[in-house]
Amino acid sequence: MTDILRADGRTNDQLRPVTIERGWSDQAEGSALISFGRTKVLATASFTNGVPRWMAGKGKGWVTAEYSMLPRSTNSRMDRESVKGRIGGRTHEISRLIGRSLRAVVDMKALGENTIVIDCDVLQADGGTRTAAITGAYVALADALEWGREKKFIAQKAQPLTDSVAAVSVGIIAGVPMLDLAYTEDVRAETDMNVVVTGRGKFIEVQGTAEGAPFDRSELDSLLDLALGGAITLTELQKTTLGR
Amino acid sequence: MTDILRADGRTNDQLRPVTIERGWSDQAEGSALISFGRTKVLATASFTNGVPRWMAGKGKGWVTAEYSMLPRSTNSRMDRESVKGRIGGRTHEISRLIGRSLRAVVDMKALGENTIVIDCDVLQADGGTRTAAITGAYVALADALEWGREKKFIAQKAQPLTDSVAAVSVGIIAGVPMLDLAYTEDVRAETDMNVVVTGRGKFIEVQGTAEGAPFDRSELDSLLDLALGGAITLTELQKTTLGR
Amino acid sequence: MTDILRADGRTNDQLRPVTIERGWSDQAEGSALISFGRTKVLATASFTNGVPRWMAGKGKGWVTAEYSMLPRSTNSRMDRESVKGRIGGRTHEISRLIGRSLRAVVDMKALGENTIVIDCDVLQADGGTRTAAITGAYVALADALEWGREKKFIAQKAQPLTDSVAAVSVGIIAGVPMLDLAYTEDVRAETDMNVVVTGRGKFIEVQGTAEGAPFDRSELDSLLDLALGGAITLTELQKTTLGR
Amino acid sequence: MTDILRADGRTNDQLRPVTIERGWSDQAEGSALISFGRTKVLATASFTNGVPRWMAGKGKGWVTAEYSMLPRSTNSRMDRESVKGRIGGRTHEISRLIGRSLRAVVDMKALGENTIVIDCDVLQADGGTRTAAITGAYVALADALEWGREKKFIAQKAQPLTDSVAAVSVGIIAGVPMLDLAYTEDVRAETDMNVVVTGRGKFIEVQGTAEGAPFDRSELDSLLDLALGGAITLTELQKTTLGR
Amino acid sequence: MTDILRADGRTNDQLRPVTIERGWSDQAEGSALISFGRTKVLATASFTNGVPRWMAGKGKGWVTAEYSMLPRSTNSRMDRESVKGRIGGRTHEISRLIGRSLRAVVDMKALGENTIVIDCDVLQADGGTRTAAITGAYVALADALEWGREKKFIAQKAQPLTDSVAAVSVGIIAGVPMLDLAYTEDVRAETDMNVVVTGRGKFIEVQGTAEGAPFDRSELDSLLDLALGGAITLTELQKTTLGR
Amino acid sequence: MTDILRADGRTNDQLRPVTIERGWSDQAEGSALISFGRTKVLATASFTNGVPRWMAGKGKGWVTAEYSMLPRSTNSRMDRESVKGRIGGRTHEISRLIGRSLRAVVDMKALGENTIVIDCDVLQADGGTRTAAITGAYVALADALEWGREKKFIAQKAQPLTDSVAAVSVGIIAGVPMLDLAYTEDVRAETDMNVVVTGRGKFIEVQGTAEGAPFDRSELDSLLDLALGGAITLTELQKTTLGR
Repeated sequence: MTDILRADGRTNDQLRPVTIERGWSDQAEGSALISFGRTKVLATASFTNGVPRWMAGKGKGWVTAEYSMLPRSTNSRMDRESVKGRIGGRTHEISRLIGRSLRAVVDMKALGENTIVIDCDVLQADGGTRTAAITGAYVALADALEWGREKKFIAQKAQPLTDSVAAVSVGIIAGVPMLDLAYTEDVRAETDMNVVVTGRGKFIEVQGTAEGAPFDRSELDSLLDLALGGAITLTELQKTTLGR
Repeated sequence: MTDILRADGRTNDQLRPVTIERGWSDQAEGSALISFGRTKVLATASFTNGVPRWMAGKGKGWVTAEYSMLPRSTNSRMDRESVKGRIGGRTHEISRLIGRSLRAVVDMKALGENTIVIDCDVLQADGGTRTAAITGAYVALADALEWGREKKFIAQKAQPLTDSVAAVSVGIIAGVPMLDLAYTEDVRAETDMNVVVTGRGKFIEVQGTAEGAPFDRSELDSLLDLALGGAITLTELQKTTLGR
Repeated sequence: MTDILRADGRTNDQLRPVTIERGWSDQAEGSALISFGRTKVLATASFTNGVPRWMAGKGKGWVTAEYSMLPRSTNSRMDRESVKGRIGGRTHEISRLIGRSLRAVVDMKALGENTIVIDCDVLQADGGTRTAAITGAYVALADALEWGREKKFIAQKAQPLTDSVAAVSVGIIAGVPMLDLAYTEDVRAETDMNVVVTGRGKFIEVQGTAEGAPFDRSELDSLLDLALGGAITLTELQKTTLGR
Repeated sequence: MTDILRADGRTNDQLRPVTIERGWSDQAEGSALISFGRTKVLATASFTNGVPRWMAGKGKGWVTAEYSMLPRSTNSRMDRESVKGRIGGRTHEISRLIGRSLRAVVDMKALGENTIVIDCDVLQADGGTRTAAITGAYVALADALEWGREKKFIAQKAQPLTDSVAAVSVGIIAGVPMLDLAYTEDVRAETDMNVVVTGRGKFIEVQGTAEGAPFDRSELDSLLDLALGGAITLTELQKTTLGR
Repeated sequence: MTDILRADGRTNDQLRPVTIERGWSDQAEGSALISFGRTKVLATASFTNGVPRWMAGKGKGWVTAEYSMLPRSTNSRMDRESVKGRIGGRTHEISRLIGRSLRAVVDMKALGENTIVIDCDVLQADGGTRTAAITGAYVALADALEWGREKKFIAQKAQPLTDSVAAVSVGIIAGVPMLDLAYTEDVRAETDMNVVVTGRGKFIEVQGTAEGAPFDRSELDSLLDLALGGAITLTELQKTTLGR
Repeated sequence: MTDILRADGRTNDQLRPVTIERGWSDQAEGSALISFGRTKVLATASFTNGVPRWMAGKGKGWVTAEYSMLPRSTNSRMDRESVKGRIGGRTHEISRLIGRSLRAVVDMKALGENTIVIDCDVLQADGGTRTAAITGAYVALADALEWGREKKFIAQKAQPLTDSVAAVSVGIIAGVPMLDLAYTEDVRAETDMNVVVTGRGKFIEVQGTAEGAPFDRSELDSLLDLALGGAITLTELQKTTLGR
């Protein structure tokens, strides 16, 4: 691994300072305000007893997610999607990614006929908002499940969580693979990859995109190594935050 | 003034604890995170040199505002307006109110051909979100104007702010006029009034609505007295926050 | 009260000629074509036995309203909101105001499980359309309620109307408070206020807005005096029209 | 022609009472409130000097139309298209028909670079709203053109109108062809046809639809005969109304 | 009939080469890829047992249609209606025409409580897409009905089809009536007419529009003659294709 | 590689029969109808001289793509996105993927100020529609670029294509990695991966998703091996089709 110092002094395999403020919201059944450097995402988990009508009677629950950015979370103001009257492709894509990532660690039978909606709202954006969202959403989800158990909507012996989940971005800048890109790094990256990993180190999602030059097999391997390393740290932080 | 203690122990003419965190955002030209008790609103002010084409060439600026609530800012989750594909009447109404209230203290000639967009996003809601938004937005606006002056987009001698502006809700519960209603109070109120007041104590907006029994002239007078009293406190806090 | 003659020769405390054509529509259960000078609004009340599913079984009814302007009701043509695909903030705001104002004089228990939708369509606009709409809508509402009683959807002894309701605009022009502003007056007004008053002289809504200079307490008092005076005349006209 | 009396006592080749109130609107450059029995349509013509950017510089004008029904123009209330957020197929179809019909009698070169928008709003509906709209719209159009000439937007010698245009519905009920169907007749008709005819008796549009049994050539001929007869009466009324 | 050769060498009463590829789709219950010269339309018929809730319990079925053009079916690319977020008037109009035309030959009682949705997607457009769509849709519909009979959703003795249906365009170019206009002919036509005819030679729809000069009664007659002639050929082709 | 025969008799590393019909459209500058077994996608490339205003003057071109499915391309009919009034997340996601994949092999400077829009419409769907779309779109793109060169919109010496691009899906079913999943295989897959590869064998996109169990590093490696193998075959077919 080359060892060039980055703009903020990090090594290539180093995460930005990550903090998770558990239970930020007084309203939601589970919540977390997560920061990856200047990136700040508020994740809330809303627990509802029951499922949509088309799912009822199968003894299974549902977990879904919505992602959005505040209009001035970014360096220049974006128009609100509510004002434009339609949700953009990027928003849809990320909402779907977060939902799939969380569902991958939930046993829907064990959840029972309950619905959890995760809202990930980016309060401030500096790269890696989708991976921060997934990492924080897991904490909110875990607390909402605990709430459901306390309220007896989930059976005492049920184990809805089959694993934990964390996510991190990696990329290649000037030919060098790097972990956890900040925004100024992200715009320069030739390849950008988001990796979603379980607490046991298996992949849920691998999404690599060549923004500039296509990448070869060995570059892909380096990126996966970096991502798996970062995921271990994030998994540890989640455990500490949740007191497990 | 009757002196019944309220659920949180306040007297009828007492505000909830109000805090303003100035400069919360690293991205916006001006920003404030304001809390009225559990109500938390993030106000950001985005300064752009220039005005929309239809306004150009008149030597005047423009100030506008958008209000929105995070889906789980409230006790039960609301659908996102971006997902529904349309903005509701209440959102429109409040965005317009905030915009009018801020414009009332801005001299558009002194602002020059610059545009300021204020975004007020409710992170947590417990009554009084629109009045908290206006009160916080003034702080964000003041800082964005200062930024514009430093960047020389606003003339050094220009005084775009003609006054300060703050807002507060009042209402009648069980026949008793009260200041700054929390959500549980608001739903019980017979009359609900939002009052927007300048630093010099004049009215910008008076919006009183009978939710239950119509109100008479003397009740209206009591509500206005309470509101003017609360506005003095908020004006002081704004001054302190801005170091003026 | 200063006594300057206005463009149309009225004194400051004088309404424009107001006429109400009751039962204008052959289709609706109640209707009125109301004119305030050149402002003409068609109000129809549609009575439906039953309520929306989410309200059923509570023994209560519902009253709601929609406001709209014909595209060439105004001096220059406006785009249709149906063509734009979205309803503007002003339309939403006024529809909600009309609905709240009417509900304030209806006892929903006495109405029983019936729904009344009031449509207020501005055929020609010359200021004061929302207050004309409320004043005319009351007549349409009263007739629709009578229709419901005749059809036995409302109990014979029930008294769904608790009072009557009328509305009028007032404003300050060149420092002088005036009653019932025509369009050319409205655009010059420093302060614009809409006041909704019951037949017994109590307030349902007070919505005052400083368009130019903020207003003080004594100006507010003068405006309320004018509005209450105008409301008395409108209430009388409603009674005469309804033959009560 | 069979001579069965209809519900309202008309013969099969008789129009309902038709009235045209020219200049109904104080705002529009041309307007007419037309009634065919209980069907009432307000047509306004808005004249604008200039054409949309994509048409500019060709020395030609443009005429377009929009049709809409008030929600309670009909026997049971319809939802507003502005509230639904989309215009239905029927509305689109009729707006296009009115626009084509009017353009067929306008010489766009003689109109010059001016735009006329015709709004046809159905205040009360009892069958034949689209044909009433076309017939009334012609009167509004003629007056708007005269206005344009007076204001010198149209050259003094130019003759933008090449002919007049009127429209009427015909249909087959229980095997009998009839002129100008009222709503209760329209719903029973096996075939429904709208015919748009110039003052000189030529066809602009022939739109025949079998709602029940298909129709044969001789039935088509009878319907066309009836329509041409009705159009002569309408053309005369237009001339009288316009004082030509 | 004048006998000028057209751009593609056809006589005025000659159709372009018409082919129908029955059963083009592996997915739909009935389908046909129809070509009129370079115009290619894929019609699929989707059979569903049951009807929408508001129709249930009446023992009747429903047939509806949707028409759309691929964005580059035409000579220059059109924006997608899905991207624009709204369906245009022309699309609505044609979808409704196709639906009405097909319903005119279906006995809804004999169909029983089954729903058939016909999708007509224009893969390549060269004039006459709506008439090609109707002609092809009939073949798809016939096969879907057969499928419904085989699956026992339709009673064995029921005869849902009361007749066949075909459609063709005709028009007047330089004063000469012509059959089946290609796109380059269509844009030059003074009058454009779409005629929908049953297998027995009766009219379902006659839609004639003067694009340039209005047309008189004898021109209308010539156009109807041409259309009826073309329809006979199309009806024969449909029979052959269906092996009837 | 395990060698279980699949439903259609293929081995795990075998593609379905793939055909490309180049120049299917008479209208588009480039086009291809590609089939992967029963999956059929029509790709058209629309070449426009010039770029959107915001890109003008930089000497660079633009390539974008839109993906859509015909409503009855699938086994059960889907509602049209144009009718729903909004594009779904999946459609957005795939349109963006196709666009990125094609841009990765285009030198925008060499393209010059020209725009190419690729439309990929799924006529029939049986799994792998997005990868078929990319593979076919490359052929349409290559022909549109050739057209642009012939029309002199692209400089004679310019080489806008830096490489070719093909795409294929791979997945894990019952623990066994397989190439090119048909729909019935896709729904059973635990992991689903789409891989976009250049003619030189480098990656443009790697999108792997665990639908059931998370996947480990060695499974990821097997999938990438299969995908690279399939891509070689597709690249050969593209070359043959284009006669290169």
